[in-house]
Amino acid sequence: MNGAESLVRTLLASGIDTCFANPGTSEMHFVAALDKVAGMRCVLGLAETVVTGCADGYARMTGRPAATLLHCGPGLANGIANVHNARRANVPMLNIVGDHATHHRQYDTPLTSDVEGLARAVSHWVHTTESSARVGADGAAAAQAALSPPGQIATLILPADTAWSDGGVVGERLSVPARTAVAPDTLRSIAQVLRSGERALMVLSGPALLEAGITAAHRIAQLTGTHLRAPTQLPRIVRGRGRPAVDRIPYAVDRALKLFSDFRHVILVGAKTPASFFAYPGKPSLLAAPDAITHVLARPEQDVVGALEWLADELGAPRDTRIPIQQAPQLVRGAFDPVAFASTLGALLPENCIVAEDAVTSGRELLSPTFGAAPHDWLQITGGAIGHGFPCATGAAIACPDRKVVCLQADGAGMYTVQSLWTQAREKLDVINVVFANRVYKILHGELLNVGAQPGPASNELFDLARPEIDWVALAGSLGVEARRVEDLEGFADVFKAAAARRGPFLIEFRI
Amino acid sequence: MNGAESLVRTLLASGIDTCFANPGTSEMHFVAALDKVAGMRCVLGLAETVVTGCADGYARMTGRPAATLLHCGPGLANGIANVHNARRANVPMLNIVGDHATHHRQYDTPLTSDVEGLARAVSHWVHTTESSARVGADGAAAAQAALSPPGQIATLILPADTAWSDGGVVGERLSVPARTAVAPDTLRSIAQVLRSGERALMVLSGPALLEAGITAAHRIAQLTGTHLRAPTQLPRIVRGRGRPAVDRIPYAVDRALKLFSDFRHVILVGAKTPASFFAYPGKPSLLAAPDAITHVLARPEQDVVGALEWLADELGAPRDTRIPIQQAPQLVRGAFDPVAFASTLGALLPENCIVAEDAVTSGRELLSPTFGAAPHDWLQITGGAIGHGFPCATGAAIACPDRKVVCLQADGAGMYTVQSLWTQAREKLDVINVVFANRVYKILHGELLNVGAQPGPASNELFDLARPEIDWVALAGSLGVEARRVEDLEGFADVFKAAAARRGPFLIEFRI
Repeated sequence: MNGAESLVRTLLASGIDTCFANPGTSEMHFVAALDKVAGMRCVLGLAETVVTGCADGYARMTGRPAATLLHCGPGLANGIANVHNARRANVPMLNIVGDHATHHRQYDTPLTSDVEGLARAVSHWVHTTESSARVGADGAAAAQAALSPPGQIATLILPADTAWSDGGVVGERLSVPARTAVAPDTLRSIAQVLRSGERALMVLSGPALLEAGITAAHRIAQLTGTHLRAPTQLPRIVRGRGRPAVDRIPYAVDRALKLFSDFRHVILVGAKTPASFFAYPGKPSLLAAPDAITHVLARPEQDVVGALEWLADELGAPRDTRIPIQQAPQLVRGAFDPVAFASTLGALLPENCIVAEDAVTSGRELLSPTFGAAPHDWLQITGGAIGHGFPCATGAAIACPDRKVVCLQADGAGMYTVQSLWTQAREKLDVINVVFANRVYKILHGELLNVGAQPGPASNELFDLARPEIDWVALAGSLGVEARRVEDLEGFADVFKAAAARRGPFLIEFRI
Repeated sequence: MNGAESLVRTLLASGIDTCFANPGTSEMHFVAALDKVAGMRCVLGLAETVVTGCADGYARMTGRPAATLLHCGPGLANGIANVHNARRANVPMLNIVGDHATHHRQYDTPLTSDVEGLARAVSHWVHTTESSARVGADGAAAAQAALSPPGQIATLILPADTAWSDGGVVGERLSVPARTAVAPDTLRSIAQVLRSGERALMVLSGPALLEAGITAAHRIAQLTGTHLRAPTQLPRIVRGRGRPAVDRIPYAVDRALKLFSDFRHVILVGAKTPASFFAYPGKPSLLAAPDAITHVLARPEQDVVGALEWLADELGAPRDTRIPIQQAPQLVRGAFDPVAFASTLGALLPENCIVAEDAVTSGRELLSPTFGAAPHDWLQITGGAIGHGFPCATGAAIACPDRKVVCLQADGAGMYTVQSLWTQAREKLDVINVVFANRVYKILHGELLNVGAQPGPASNELFDLARPEIDWVALAGSLGVEARRVEDLEGFADVFKAAAARRGPFLIEFRI
């Protein structure tokens, strides 16, 4: 058995059975091994940022890492932006990067590059395999690293000769460390804060936004009046009818500062210290009020849900807390407007669907009007590396073939990873892609004003996407995805309903 | 004057007047400064790998660096693959990467990343500016680094507050070190080799492949019988009627080994030690015969042309050496075949055009049948990071608005950077893009066989680009570029002639 085959068998033994790939020559033995070993599903992406974005979406929905197969330094580099988003979402991912044979590197041939340097910049764990006999053990260690709480980026660099040489040994599945329990002192001290009656805001992330976590947080909130928020960039949240309505911290700094100004205590539950996304001249980076006290209930890698449940019980919150009924979103007619769109979308979202959102300026108002939609999961771009929506939706659809996926994608961002549509067509994935075609990097207009400047001819030249206009219907069609253009909310509703009633990928270009 | 404005003025003072950009919030002050300071041409790319590939093509044709404007770590990462190609071509490039304000980095907000780590992996020079007062001086140092022989990658990281704060000082243009002369001993020793009558092969790269260099090399070759070759991946070569016919070292290892087996001496002229692109089991990496002697006439950063001219004079080679007349390429009819296509292309190439080639398997036979074409420059992917053709052609067209550019692009590789077409449409660039639509990663089939494996269902799944077929005509049209599909050589010739007779971007999908 060669090293490559030992790696495929090791990954399967570690529970990794899905591989998103854009392979090259250095990965040919791994590819050949896939023909020998059954059980690994391989999905091709036409650019590496699609590959890594798919692995992110897959991991968000399964909690398990996918493998990615990338070609040398440039292949890894092309995928780094969505690895960065995945890292910010604390999802597990196992990147396999083929590289030159160990004896070939010294000649510094054209594809030779600093693969380790690139990998270290975005990975929690990096290792270059030294011999075919070590491939299996290294692969098992990579899987262990990826699965270690809260979910990590592991990158295994595989020189071609370690893949092609005989002597491969399958690595045994390694035990994964459990989430550590929160110290009793911490729990008791936060219970005391919550009993104090002082105004408290809990920032929930990671598992605190999934079913068990958000339920426990809601029990606490109902009892104590604690305000619940998700980070501005959240990895995944369960929401819709019957679920607690937890909104995000606003992106706009002034609105965020105003929100926090009301609270004496900020309690972090698997979340980081709230800070503005960017710094702006004369504005603070930290969002909490200057005299507020920030408490850490649980770090991201700790037992976030256990801590929330202990607290809820300790405080005496009833187990069967009633979830307030949210207003059902209504179909709205007329031109695009963020809130009206959100209401319309909320009325249309299929039961148990998955929403992948990278809508940038068009997405700021989406959450609140959709609290009363049918139950669904919402995934969001987490690291600010735009172009996340299309591939995240694609990976989520691979992970959950029985659920409808709705991708909400800004047009400028969507052009980064438009190749994802081809993978959706190839795999016949059940994704409705909505492209917000405002034909401008609208966020940059706003940011230019935020930093105190005024757009002029040169800056408008760099924001404008309308010369030429991108024909999203033709673009999707060229990659095998049926598409329609709509110009108002009623047109959107009609086309969305039709798309939701069928299976397979579809794209709606909403000209706004 | 704020730091951003001082940087724009510094770049202009250093002779850098073209900026390829995909900016984000951190770069807004730089963008705002463009509105205040005249003279900097900005070209928008819809993905960063387009931006950096454009800068590469621009620098290959002008010898001057363009600036790139990239957004934080993920923006840089998205552009790294074509920075890698540029690095391998020894072209100058000045990347400006915006980053968080210095006081904001500590909060590790979503876009925070290891920008320096990413930059170091692909740059010769990396620096993070510390204050607005230093921006100008740092920009001048970056320009100096980029222009230092043989051409370097300089990456300047610009925290947002150093751009927005007052106190900017324009940096003076710094002197650039000249190419160092080759030591007289070296020159004399190689003259002796060339006089010995023993079989010698000169590998020419960098300036040795441009007009003065290739002319001097040809004088030496005519006199001494020295065989001339370009590297398999060459940055730029002047060729066609009236120029010496210098072929590449073959990509296929066995063919390359056979070529070198004839030569007792290998003389490197601005080129690296010839080695196979990849390693293969049981095959050597180095191409020179085991008993051959390798000599370095000039390193890439040395005075390559001066060394060749000294040698030619010293050996007594006539200055007016006659260039052998090459057979004029002929139009061929029928189905696509690499040699027949090359001949047809050679018959059609417009006088003084620029060819940008990233044709992968379809490109292996292009050079020899086009020796007798109209005079032209040929640019090639140099670092193996595919997706180079479209953006390189785009940047070359910006650099040389009066010359027709012909882009020869493999379909799989082209999907990496298809967004380039939009920039071609926006800037009304005079580029004929030829896409070789074989609907498969054909090179991987070959490489799988090279490493001794056989394609099976799983590997074919990862090579196949035909499910669904990509409609390149619709794809180009969706991005504003007129396109036609052809299926045979006579159809290609007709459409190419029509495209060559007009101005503006055009795409020909050649289904092969």
